[in-house]
Amino acid sequence: MSHQLKEILSPGSIAVAGASEKTRGGGFLSPLVDLGFQGQIYPVNPNYQEVSGLTCYPSIKDIPGNVDYVISSVPSTAALDLMRDCVEKAVKCVHYFTARFSETGRPADAALEQEILKTAREGGVRIIGPNCMGLYNPGAGISMNIGMPEESGGVGLASQSGGTLMQIVGSAARRGLRFSKAISYGNAIDLNECDYLEYFTEDPDTTVILMYIEGIKDGARFIAALEKATAAKPVVILKGGRSDAGTRATASHTASLAGSYSVFQGLVHGAGGVTVWDFDELVDMAVAFYYLPSHTSRNLGIMGGSGGNSVNGADIFAEAKLNVATIPQDIRDRLNEEDDPNHDWYNNPIDGSISMGDSSGIERLMELMTEHDDFQTFISFIPGPRWDGKGSSDFESIMEQSLHYKTDKPVIMLSGGFSRMPESEEMANLGSRIRQQLFDDGVATYASMTRAAHALSKLIDFYEYRKQWADFQ
Amino acid sequence: MSHQLKEILSPGSIAVAGASEKTRGGGFLSPLVDLGFQGQIYPVNPNYQEVSGLTCYPSIKDIPGNVDYVISSVPSTAALDLMRDCVEKAVKCVHYFTARFSETGRPADAALEQEILKTAREGGVRIIGPNCMGLYNPGAGISMNIGMPEESGGVGLASQSGGTLMQIVGSAARRGLRFSKAISYGNAIDLNECDYLEYFTEDPDTTVILMYIEGIKDGARFIAALEKATAAKPVVILKGGRSDAGTRATASHTASLAGSYSVFQGLVHGAGGVTVWDFDELVDMAVAFYYLPSHTSRNLGIMGGSGGNSVNGADIFAEAKLNVATIPQDIRDRLNEEDDPNHDWYNNPIDGSISMGDSSGIERLMELMTEHDDFQTFISFIPGPRWDGKGSSDFESIMEQSLHYKTDKPVIMLSGGFSRMPESEEMANLGSRIRQQLFDDGVATYASMTRAAHALSKLIDFYEYRKQWADFQ
Repeated sequence: MSHQLKEILSPGSIAVAGASEKTRGGGFLSPLVDLGFQGQIYPVNPNYQEVSGLTCYPSIKDIPGNVDYVISSVPSTAALDLMRDCVEKAVKCVHYFTARFSETGRPADAALEQEILKTAREGGVRIIGPNCMGLYNPGAGISMNIGMPEESGGVGLASQSGGTLMQIVGSAARRGLRFSKAISYGNAIDLNECDYLEYFTEDPDTTVILMYIEGIKDGARFIAALEKATAAKPVVILKGGRSDAGTRATASHTASLAGSYSVFQGLVHGAGGVTVWDFDELVDMAVAFYYLPSHTSRNLGIMGGSGGNSVNGADIFAEAKLNVATIPQDIRDRLNEEDDPNHDWYNNPIDGSISMGDSSGIERLMELMTEHDDFQTFISFIPGPRWDGKGSSDFESIMEQSLHYKTDKPVIMLSGGFSRMPESEEMANLGSRIRQQLFDDGVATYASMTRAAHALSKLIDFYEYRKQWADFQ
Repeated sequence: MSHQLKEILSPGSIAVAGASEKTRGGGFLSPLVDLGFQGQIYPVNPNYQEVSGLTCYPSIKDIPGNVDYVISSVPSTAALDLMRDCVEKAVKCVHYFTARFSETGRPADAALEQEILKTAREGGVRIIGPNCMGLYNPGAGISMNIGMPEESGGVGLASQSGGTLMQIVGSAARRGLRFSKAISYGNAIDLNECDYLEYFTEDPDTTVILMYIEGIKDGARFIAALEKATAAKPVVILKGGRSDAGTRATASHTASLAGSYSVFQGLVHGAGGVTVWDFDELVDMAVAFYYLPSHTSRNLGIMGGSGGNSVNGADIFAEAKLNVATIPQDIRDRLNEEDDPNHDWYNNPIDGSISMGDSSGIERLMELMTEHDDFQTFISFIPGPRWDGKGSSDFESIMEQSLHYKTDKPVIMLSGGFSRMPESEEMANLGSRIRQQLFDDGVATYASMTRAAHALSKLIDFYEYRKQWADFQ
């Protein structure tokens, strides 16, 4: 039996309650039109005959056809009546953008929220929210904002915050990632983090699951769902409300009781989940799981940095529990036989400045390293532009040198060189073109060594733990 | 008596030994011309009459006038003879770009390096390097690469790696920072990290000192110099060679013995210095010390983020030992008297979405917070652009709202919103224009909450420690 959310998240018809000519694009109407939703769209508002060129109905009950999904932007005072109408109309799910319920901290607002939930439960209607931005389903043409990517991809996201959802989708899009579905679920009074996690676990279009969670509604069910999920695909979780100040903020934002973070983190790690610190790291982990294969070797070769980057890179990757392996003697012997005068000097990371203009020795060393069992993953700097705008500023020559074309082993590319020059439009365009090519080639790309090191180390932790878990059972 | 380096780093005449028509722009000649060095420039090479339009001399000794400073790009085999000529000519300092000395790990190369040092010492010539990019002194028009910023500023940098120096100057320039002087000093056989640190301590144009160090030549002298330096101005140190892999890399890069990092870090912290993890954090700390006043209060107000950013921001700043203070009761009472319906709901961080379109209440809250003693520093998000390109995409309205115009207390601005949208040229230009205005206004700006939190926390650590040190003595 497929998950109930499968049907709910791909509705055939959508009504927007509280659509208004006063709101730009009728509020939630424009994003649906923008992303090309193919089903019926019904604006609902007793004050209009028409909104954004679509026939507007006085109430849900007045809509002639079936309504699968309702987006509510009515005031909270009208939210209970709306649910009663939805029960009568046999709507499957209501997404309440409507806010000012339990998150205000006032008893009357919390009581109203509970009354809506009771009505929905009795009437068989599911709720997303309230106090959230709802659903982004690019494959079905459903979005909460204009301009979000039209293409689908393998990332599934459940985020208790709507602004955060849009931030994550936006910054992930800049890293070449696309989403199967993303759901902002606010106060989570009915459908909660467990439902979304279970759904993404079953969803064949989702290969990595991201979650931003402020409060867990049902701890035991969540951990059971997480164990099942991580056996199938990586799950990366950012927790909001780790500190006292953060816990106060979750209460006023989504009425969430954040609880002990050390307990949460312990349980998530025990169930094989990956925890992260901030939104940037959440996207960094999505990049790692999206582009890199499942593997557990910590042996790295690092190449293409200057002397200082080689030294700092060695430190950073080693401190992230990765093994910046020494050059094996058999490679040195081979280079010696081939009369390379630097055979005894080379090091891993490879410091490109040793070559002093003749890169043939370094190219041969790289070739031998990619073929050697001691090196299972490579970190490679994209040659940065020079101050004079010359040198490595030619797209073709940069891509021609790119290591990922020369080995089948995983390669992580570092693009930081492009942010270390005075800003220029030409260099920004070149950097953007190179990154796009790397996305198209399926290569994980990071702006800094530190971020790449942390992401790679956590990726290996995930696959190692899963292997050990399987061996244990 | 002023430091000996004061004269050495501002030479009246420069000879470039090994200048060649085969090298683009005669190697180190072009950067001098590019940055407008006002003294005499003498190319030296027995094979040319002229290089880059300047009269070329067969040897240093053949130059008609005085030569203060020599840049050597001759091969290492010619480096000793060059030093002998420099002694005879009474040159004050030789910068050896020339490499392949002790860093190759070969005894003969190390012996040659020592012979050059002996000759220099006996002849009274100082050495920068060898194996380095040398001096960037924008005020005197001296540079090691074309296109580096012409303007001077308060940051002093000593970096054992030349590529690293250029990366730091470039990425710092993108954050609005400019340099008094920056020196790449390679193998440091004569002038070493102690000399540069002592010089920058005395230099009135330098307000913050950055160092990238692979190996310490004289530990006791360095710590004594550091204690003296930190009493006068902040010193931020990135150490290369913290791990085994990094230590191997420092040996082959600058022949440095890295030593125990925990001892190094302990001694640096004891002397009041700030240590950082990577090049990004080095620049982040420079931004903090450059723009923020000396202060020791950990009490923060955070404003302008969405709900999720408010929650994650509260966690990040709290976990960085900062106090995201609660809204004081007297502010809530005041807002209640003024009939603000949300007086009991507001929180710090201020979640802008609570306003639901009417921002007057939040503006009043911000005003009361900036005037209140409980809040001594503010973190404020630059309003990000919307997906549809509308909303906060107007430079004037964004700047008009900017908090730093509304309080004299320190404000840190977060620009991350601009990297969380699909890339567009218009938004990139807007972001760039806003950042430039913030630089001009002297406001510390960070791309992420995490980086801002770490930098602010370390800044306060520095000033707290210095105060306690002074009290102790």
